[in-house]
Amino acid sequence: MYAARFNMKTVVFAEQPGGLITTTHLVENYPGIKSITGPDMGQVFIEHAMESGAEMKFDRVKKIEKQEDGLFRVEAGNDEYISRTVVMATGTKHRHLGVPGEEEYANKGVSYCALCDAAFFKDKTAAIVGGGDSAAIEANILAQHCSKVYVLVRKDHMRAEPVNQDKIEKDPKVEIKYLTEIDSIGGDGEKVTHLMLKGGDKLELDGVFMAIGQLPQNELAEGVGAELDERGFLIVNRESGTNVPGFYGAGDITNAQFKQAIIGAAEGVYASVKAYEYIQSQK
Amino acid sequence: MYAARFNMKTVVFAEQPGGLITTTHLVENYPGIKSITGPDMGQVFIEHAMESGAEMKFDRVKKIEKQEDGLFRVEAGNDEYISRTVVMATGTKHRHLGVPGEEEYANKGVSYCALCDAAFFKDKTAAIVGGGDSAAIEANILAQHCSKVYVLVRKDHMRAEPVNQDKIEKDPKVEIKYLTEIDSIGGDGEKVTHLMLKGGDKLELDGVFMAIGQLPQNELAEGVGAELDERGFLIVNRESGTNVPGFYGAGDITNAQFKQAIIGAAEGVYASVKAYEYIQSQK
Repeated sequence: MYAARFNMKTVVFAEQPGGLITTTHLVENYPGIKSITGPDMGQVFIEHAMESGAEMKFDRVKKIEKQEDGLFRVEAGNDEYISRTVVMATGTKHRHLGVPGEEEYANKGVSYCALCDAAFFKDKTAAIVGGGDSAAIEANILAQHCSKVYVLVRKDHMRAEPVNQDKIEKDPKVEIKYLTEIDSIGGDGEKVTHLMLKGGDKLELDGVFMAIGQLPQNELAEGVGAELDERGFLIVNRESGTNVPGFYGAGDITNAQFKQAIIGAAEGVYASVKAYEYIQSQK
Repeated sequence: MYAARFNMKTVVFAEQPGGLITTTHLVENYPGIKSITGPDMGQVFIEHAMESGAEMKFDRVKKIEKQEDGLFRVEAGNDEYISRTVVMATGTKHRHLGVPGEEEYANKGVSYCALCDAAFFKDKTAAIVGGGDSAAIEANILAQHCSKVYVLVRKDHMRAEPVNQDKIEKDPKVEIKYLTEIDSIGGDGEKVTHLMLKGGDKLELDGVFMAIGQLPQNELAEGVGAELDERGFLIVNRESGTNVPGFYGAGDITNAQFKQAIIGAAEGVYASVKAYEYIQSQK
């Protein structure tokens, strides 16, 4: 939207129009939009870009290369495009647990983002699945809202920062269950009601949050030589620039500390304005 | 809004509810909101925060101090508040030229932000007032949209970066008028139609953009010892942190490179999440 408003010829390539947020039930934490469904949010962003003059191509980008003349060659669908600048906003996929019921109850009690969805579980019971620092952090967030929080850890210990682990250990609302794995997620057809654990125990609850990692969709960075951090996220600076001139990053694929829609949107604006400055500087 | 969603007791102090954006006619570049008036945008942000649990106080904050116990003491209205963290989002004021017609035609052809409003002047004639780098940059932005752009410079030279000045000098749409000052801004009552220049010349046009500087509202930083940059903006890092633990910055008051609503909103989200982490780390 910003790129098009700068009168740059702007093409958005998207295999899944609207991105990961379209898989979210309800978004209530994007400043200025009080409540919107995930699919509607994806749609309004697409419309905003198109009505500003951007073109949408619902194709998968297969490869990006920086040519010797400094221009980028983008392979998408069955076509090839030459561009002065590229903004990589390929996002992440949530790592899934792969148990029965997980896909059926997605957004019906199964969530992959406590920061996004904890407020929907006020005074309810929820479980966090995971043993890392993000599991501990998300358990703390859930405990602000829920009446009871289980942390289900596959191993006999967590790998969380001590400060975060201390807090969940001291919080009477939180119960950490070690050596615990989920066999299946059960519900009444409408929403989650319980988990079946390996060993046969049943755990009654209203929601289950997966904190077992993100999979950054970083394959395209390699072709242009853009640097990734140790977790595989695209390293950008405060103005969305990478180590490759003319190549920018925005959204969940970047090494930003919080993966939130508003932060990705701001990164996209920085990327567009810097792309404009980059093109102007070469004239 | 984010702070309240984290169940932190959150108070927003605002002398002018909604901030500077409420003085903008129309906002069409906030991603996800295609078109909204400035006053409505201010209102929706206030409502979003309040409905999430934040309290609004329409008082001017007179002073903020960090006490020896690490808590902040905030003087506002006739009251005093003690807080674990503070987010400073005091914004800027646009420097005004101070000529007749300037206030009367604000948002009716008089603008202080080419990045925000240039698209409303497609195929029209506009003037930029100023001799600095931002005047040159904004002239370039206007030239993407307008059919004719005047740059009115009081002195006999500009202080712009050569690359930006070169571009406006080479652009046939742009005419730089040195040793030129505005006597008054004239219109038909509804919108700007011309400028009267000192010396008596009349310049017919549709819009006039002031690029004569921002006045950061930075007085409160001093009481807590927060560092400002050489232009008076609050120095924050990518996660909105300042040099003072527990003290954050967001919006136009920060040293962010672009003063845009979406960037300020993302800074506010970073500030709120980091404030939450800060409080948690002290428990």
